[in-house]
Amino acid sequence: MADSLAELQEALDALIEERNWAQFHAPKNLAMGVAIEAAEIMEHFQWCTADESYSLPREKRVEVANEIGDVLLYLLGLGRTLDIDIIAAARDKLALIRERRPVEKTAGGRTAKYVDLD
Amino acid sequence: MADSLAELQEALDALIEERNWAQFHAPKNLAMGVAIEAAEIMEHFQWCTADESYSLPREKRVEVANEIGDVLLYLLGLGRTLDIDIIAAARDKLALIRERRPVEKTAGGRTAKYVDLD
Amino acid sequence: MADSLAELQEALDALIEERNWAQFHAPKNLAMGVAIEAAEIMEHFQWCTADESYSLPREKRVEVANEIGDVLLYLLGLGRTLDIDIIAAARDKLALIRERRPVEKTAGGRTAKYVDLD
Amino acid sequence: MADSLAELQEALDALIEERNWAQFHAPKNLAMGVAIEAAEIMEHFQWCTADESYSLPREKRVEVANEIGDVLLYLLGLGRTLDIDIIAAARDKLALIRERRPVEKTAGGRTAKYVDLD
Repeated sequence: MADSLAELQEALDALIEERNWAQFHAPKNLAMGVAIEAAEIMEHFQWCTADESYSLPREKRVEVANEIGDVLLYLLGLGRTLDIDIIAAARDKLALIRERRPVEKTAGGRTAKYVDLD
Repeated sequence: MADSLAELQEALDALIEERNWAQFHAPKNLAMGVAIEAAEIMEHFQWCTADESYSLPREKRVEVANEIGDVLLYLLGLGRTLDIDIIAAARDKLALIRERRPVEKTAGGRTAKYVDLD
Repeated sequence: MADSLAELQEALDALIEERNWAQFHAPKNLAMGVAIEAAEIMEHFQWCTADESYSLPREKRVEVANEIGDVLLYLLGLGRTLDIDIIAAARDKLALIRERRPVEKTAGGRTAKYVDLD
Repeated sequence: MADSLAELQEALDALIEERNWAQFHAPKNLAMGVAIEAAEIMEHFQWCTADESYSLPREKRVEVANEIGDVLLYLLGLGRTLDIDIIAAARDKLALIRERRPVEKTAGGRTAKYVDLD
């Protein structure tokens, strides 16, 4: 996996700077962007079953990757504007899940069904 | 900024493995997760103006970071399940934007208003 | 089925008027509200299978009804603010679907899978 | 305002029946539909200010009406499948808001800012 977000962040910053787009990128608008693009990911999964969703046709897979890229870009932009480190935020969240959903209470996946990542 | 997604991915994989949650993580369900958490980010921005959204009260900022973490975790999980490298996906998307929205057509932000990242 | 939206609209208008909330109800913010509440409906369906989603536990069903109510209220509010008749809008949309997806091309549901209501 | 949902419901039922689409309309999938179309409404408001959102260009207004129609259709479909009366659900929700946000605590809109319809 490509590992570095720093490089991506720089490329995104340059793109926005060159186009003078920062003026439109209030956190409110970027948060809308994350949600809009997330819905575009979902669109590709609306009518398939959970099982089918594992094996997308090649063309659809490219489109999903495209929308995933959009969500990550908006998320990075939002983090930047609010001075939130998105990787640190996810790491903190993982620690919180470990605490709230200890293995001994969820192992076997018996209770997992109603347990999610938040 | 924390830079490495690889480490985060490993920690997420371990968490899911230990809890036997992979059985619930069909791409369809994870895509829903991305959208649900994206809406939870948005909730914090619904009633403020674009200007106010730049300076969230400290407490709200923590909650937003928390939701941003959730979106990134679901996005990573989705990428993993579909074998999509999310950073590469974002990088490809940036290249596409550069091509479709060349600087000379958008500089000054005059036309930027109706131009977005997708 | 309760049939009249007019009465509901009046009750909603009165509620907003009494609380002096119209000042916050810009279409932009109400559109966010529709999406936020839609995600809250979805939350109840994230981990169940399509089959399971037909028979929600009673308690969950009440919560889903609650969120459905929220979406309809925001939708009504948005329609009001933009002077869009939401029932007429849905009726026009139905006519469009009839035109674009004629029965003879979709009967038997063979092609329906990739066909949606939009 | 067009007032009757009953007629719309009948037209929607006929459309689905004729196309044999009920097989795809599990509540889980319809809930995704509500959220996807809600995001499509939002798309039209992402870059405008709250003030600008009151006066959409005519063409954009038609598209927004179109997406509002989609959300209502999915909402109706979802209600039908779960045997939830969407107008009654909204009416119940209004009653709940009246109870939780009594006028005397919100009048003047001073506290309204962080108060929403849910």
